[in-house]
Amino acid sequence: MMKIRLLLLFFIFSFSCLYAEDGSKLWLRYTPVSKEMAKNRSITADAKNPVAVQAQHELATFWKGQSIDLKLDKKLTHLKDGFKITGHRDRIKVTAHEPAGLLYAAYHLLQLQETDQQVLNLNVEEIPSFDIRMLNHWDNLDRTVERGYAGYSIWQWDDLPKLLSPRYEAYARANASIGINATVINNVNASPQILSSEYLLKLKGLSDVFRRYGIKVYLSVNFSSPKILGGTSDSDPLNPQVILWWRNKVKEIYSVIPDFGGFLVKANSEGQPGPQDYGRTHAQGANMLAAILKPYQGLVMWRAFVYNPSTEDRAKQAYQEFVPLDGQFSDNVIIQIKNGPIDFQPREPFNALFGALKKSHEMVEFQITQEYLGFSNHLVYLAPLFKETLDRDTYADGKGSTVARLTDGTLRPAGKTAIAAVANIGDDTNWTGHHFAQANWYAYGRLSWNHQLASEQIAEEWIAMTFSRDKQFIAAVKEMMMTSREAAVNYMMPLGLHHIFAFDHHYGPEPWGDQKGGRPDWMPWYYHQADTIGVGFDRTASGSNAISQYSPHVANIYGDILLCPDQYLLWFHHVPWHYTMKSGLSLWDELCYQYDLGVKQVRDMQKVWDRLENQVDQQRFAEVQSKLKIQAKDAVWWKDACLLYFQTYSKRPIPYDIERPVHELEDLKKIKLNMKHHN
Amino acid sequence: MMKIRLLLLFFIFSFSCLYAEDGSKLWLRYTPVSKEMAKNRSITADAKNPVAVQAQHELATFWKGQSIDLKLDKKLTHLKDGFKITGHRDRIKVTAHEPAGLLYAAYHLLQLQETDQQVLNLNVEEIPSFDIRMLNHWDNLDRTVERGYAGYSIWQWDDLPKLLSPRYEAYARANASIGINATVINNVNASPQILSSEYLLKLKGLSDVFRRYGIKVYLSVNFSSPKILGGTSDSDPLNPQVILWWRNKVKEIYSVIPDFGGFLVKANSEGQPGPQDYGRTHAQGANMLAAILKPYQGLVMWRAFVYNPSTEDRAKQAYQEFVPLDGQFSDNVIIQIKNGPIDFQPREPFNALFGALKKSHEMVEFQITQEYLGFSNHLVYLAPLFKETLDRDTYADGKGSTVARLTDGTLRPAGKTAIAAVANIGDDTNWTGHHFAQANWYAYGRLSWNHQLASEQIAEEWIAMTFSRDKQFIAAVKEMMMTSREAAVNYMMPLGLHHIFAFDHHYGPEPWGDQKGGRPDWMPWYYHQADTIGVGFDRTASGSNAISQYSPHVANIYGDILLCPDQYLLWFHHVPWHYTMKSGLSLWDELCYQYDLGVKQVRDMQKVWDRLENQVDQQRFAEVQSKLKIQAKDAVWWKDACLLYFQTYSKRPIPYDIERPVHELEDLKKIKLNMKHHN
Repeated sequence: MMKIRLLLLFFIFSFSCLYAEDGSKLWLRYTPVSKEMAKNRSITADAKNPVAVQAQHELATFWKGQSIDLKLDKKLTHLKDGFKITGHRDRIKVTAHEPAGLLYAAYHLLQLQETDQQVLNLNVEEIPSFDIRMLNHWDNLDRTVERGYAGYSIWQWDDLPKLLSPRYEAYARANASIGINATVINNVNASPQILSSEYLLKLKGLSDVFRRYGIKVYLSVNFSSPKILGGTSDSDPLNPQVILWWRNKVKEIYSVIPDFGGFLVKANSEGQPGPQDYGRTHAQGANMLAAILKPYQGLVMWRAFVYNPSTEDRAKQAYQEFVPLDGQFSDNVIIQIKNGPIDFQPREPFNALFGALKKSHEMVEFQITQEYLGFSNHLVYLAPLFKETLDRDTYADGKGSTVARLTDGTLRPAGKTAIAAVANIGDDTNWTGHHFAQANWYAYGRLSWNHQLASEQIAEEWIAMTFSRDKQFIAAVKEMMMTSREAAVNYMMPLGLHHIFAFDHHYGPEPWGDQKGGRPDWMPWYYHQADTIGVGFDRTASGSNAISQYSPHVANIYGDILLCPDQYLLWFHHVPWHYTMKSGLSLWDELCYQYDLGVKQVRDMQKVWDRLENQVDQQRFAEVQSKLKIQAKDAVWWKDACLLYFQTYSKRPIPYDIERPVHELEDLKKIKLNMKHHN
Repeated sequence: MMKIRLLLLFFIFSFSCLYAEDGSKLWLRYTPVSKEMAKNRSITADAKNPVAVQAQHELATFWKGQSIDLKLDKKLTHLKDGFKITGHRDRIKVTAHEPAGLLYAAYHLLQLQETDQQVLNLNVEEIPSFDIRMLNHWDNLDRTVERGYAGYSIWQWDDLPKLLSPRYEAYARANASIGINATVINNVNASPQILSSEYLLKLKGLSDVFRRYGIKVYLSVNFSSPKILGGTSDSDPLNPQVILWWRNKVKEIYSVIPDFGGFLVKANSEGQPGPQDYGRTHAQGANMLAAILKPYQGLVMWRAFVYNPSTEDRAKQAYQEFVPLDGQFSDNVIIQIKNGPIDFQPREPFNALFGALKKSHEMVEFQITQEYLGFSNHLVYLAPLFKETLDRDTYADGKGSTVARLTDGTLRPAGKTAIAAVANIGDDTNWTGHHFAQANWYAYGRLSWNHQLASEQIAEEWIAMTFSRDKQFIAAVKEMMMTSREAAVNYMMPLGLHHIFAFDHHYGPEPWGDQKGGRPDWMPWYYHQADTIGVGFDRTASGSNAISQYSPHVANIYGDILLCPDQYLLWFHHVPWHYTMKSGLSLWDELCYQYDLGVKQVRDMQKVWDRLENQVDQQRFAEVQSKLKIQAKDAVWWKDACLLYFQTYSKRPIPYDIERPVHELEDLKKIKLNMKHHN
């Protein structure tokens, strides 16, 4: 009996550190300052702007340190919407050029507080890397989310504008806390309906909330909107009726939302309408809209993600389409370019358009939602993926022409600089489906604010604010996060393999994928090009010559099988199975070990997480544990599917020290998941 | 082009050693001797008995060595149906007391030839360990096979006796080649119909084939046959009408099958009728049949596998039922006792009945078909399991009272000694579903012939005759086979756990298994007794005291938690989770490592097999490889299910260096396989 009581006590003790947690708080877990403590310090602001008031409010509620004075200084234009913080033991002074700068400073101070950093002697100046730090929602008006894996859209259109979900403010606050100041509310595959007067009023409901957090609203627009919504005879950008319709519509928008940001346009791509439908160029289409938006300081983000079924390598098409138009785009058009030449793969080389457009404004588009990275089932920390593109040297303007410096205004003076990423946010309680997917939202925001931050530092901040400030805990979880993206590449498509996903839903492996009469550029075999000789897409001069789109320095490296980094090898080269890799292994063996490594890495992630059970609340522990199980099973699925499939070409044994497949290729081929683009 | 041709040549060469193989030949792959070679030697026989002729025929067809003379010698009674072989470079002399002895000698010589052993100087005397070496078929008359996993029954009742499948002779020859000389043709859950005149004539068709290979036919009989088939008022063994019916029926049987072996009876067990239905004892029931069979030298095998739903430990019931009857059974009754006290589990201690019946004839019943060992999906070499029981010292008649010596006539003079095993044979092309399950049929035969053979030697013989004589190949496959049973115990139920199988079909794990209103002794919780304190069935004096059924020496060891071998620990003891094992680990940790070891062992088996790809024909290689994949997946399933379930009691973490679960307990609980007893 004594024994049982002791055991009971033991259990109660072990679980005492656990409390209910659903992840809804994200990284914003400040606890209010005590009245006692608040008495001893003051938080003042010299501005009555709602954003400045919000800054003051956050600090008054949560700041546990010395007094703070918030000041706007219209002379400090160099700060943009950044801030300057100086301070000592008794008092901190925050200055900013914009009210939003004060708000960002407030969150900066709270972040220092929540991550146990010193605040007694501060001398900080932060100027954001990009002017426009933008989320792209692929949310449809029926509340499905294309490539969304965290439930339905958070925009409750039926209730808007009358009912405002408390989520809208929580969303705005979370974004502001990491510097995001722009949001494209709807899917790039846009319904014209979003431009209806009814929806513009709903949108006003949202933008009124967002404005207090310094966030501007943008819209994706359907290029056929004039014809569909306005009844014009066509949507030709040179048709005066069409132009008139747009002019009136823009006027209407700004009458409802005076600080409206502008349009995002996916035109003539994957079935979307565009200027080419009328024999006009992308430039003509974009410039028409830009001209109308210009008086309002509105912008056009024009997507470069265009490709068509043709004999030309898909990876080359955006470049071929846009480079000839270079110099023709208006000043308030920014070409929005996906980080890689294909489509948000686990790993891609940088898009050759970066730097190649010498006289056009460019911006990067990332994907936070994990369309090609295990949805919200796989833990994949994306900061290293984002950094990989941002830090890549294009050599477009000589050494040091990184994608970041080409797009942030450093190398090429620009009107407004911008960066965008497809959001992973839905109405799931924890916002992003996977608790660790919150880190990708966080990391994107932090990098859009300062692209020089290290992935490690961002991870540390996020872990400390989201889970625990314990140093060993942070170290363990950071290690897991930092491994995770390489793990995903390894178990999905190492060595430069790409787009061998199952058709349509892009979740599992389908390297054998083929559809009678389907577009080759939507078929996995198009991308891996496996045959009995080898595997990989020859994009050198002997192949598609996509390599020629890069600057000579880059082309020389990627185009030379001896110089090309392993991680891009099969992206640029068709490599024989027997080819000797830098490791000394044959390509086939190396491929096998990479897949196996991916599986091992996920299993190690499971071990790391399980060890932390007593340091995480029960709900989030169990939910992440459960997702890691799925990831571990999926990793084996990927490994078996890819190795067994490629083995039918390589005819080589899987190295015998590797854990053997547990699936039959024929069984895996039968798997047809009933998954939609969205959930 | 040159390159492609070279590659083609390479492929053709690599596959040149592979040929189509379906496993139908079992271990009988002798190739006929050339005419040239046959000319230079003679095979003579001094007997015209069909069995002796068969012996002569086998040698004449396949023997590639010197001349052989086969002789019967009626004086050599000590040989029983064994043989003596003496010989030198030019001539071999085989003598036997029975014609079957000549046939066994022929297969012995062919085995020496096929396993590359010397035959130039022979001096061999082999006397079988048991007189009756028996297979029990659990085949139903509708051709389903209870607990059969190799297709339908090989007995094609509709076609018998007119059409004789060539499989009957192949079956008889395979059995004779390993010394099996008796077969119970039908399920112990017997249909009375088997005793109908129609079926006896069908049976004659089979027995006529088997006789040429020295094999006697036995029948399982339903104790209610007189009433059901003969229309008697009941089946009371003391009812003169009943006795008369049996007498006439036995007379009829012997008129059709003069060398009929006798009856196997499952009575008053799991719903089968028996003498207790009329207030008679097992002894009265058995003796009635024995008296009728005695004039024909017929035998009664009476099964001790009886238990009833009661508060008494199921493991004790057979002992309690039969020991009080000791001394009452007729001389031609043999009590057929399953190797363990429960039911063919992956590991059981020996059945306490062995030796406890001092004045009754006893025989062991093994199970070759893998009811509790992964069906025909898992590679589990059973010779070590058989040996484990045979070699176990019961101390019933003092030290050295092994189960083998108690039942083979060494320690206790017996009329006829016997051994039985439930067959794993079906109409699958490869006979046993899994190519390696053939080894269990082989091993059982070899051990019934000579229970002192080592498992390793039997494996070597079987591998050499079934796959390859290559020494490295044999060593690798033998290692895999020798590990396999421990692997299965480890991933299914280590440390003495038992019967935590899914209800009814006994394939997967279901330690949580429970059925409202179901018999407790058919529920896994009855056997594992897990609670927050610990796990295991207390069968010591403080529990069910099943331990008291063993001789004091054995009871002292198994009953003492400090002395009890780990492999039986949870069979006999309820052990606290924190209990320190011999390894120094806690019980919980030890359990975790055992399950994990099981998974690793199966993965290692996969590696061994895959390495042998070029040394095995393609079909058998691929089929075994595929089964090993299932086994590897199942092992993880077992590990996850049992550890996650027991963890709900132990409340302890799975040691962190162990590969983490990939399943959710709640998902596993939902698995309901639609499997029948038979296929």
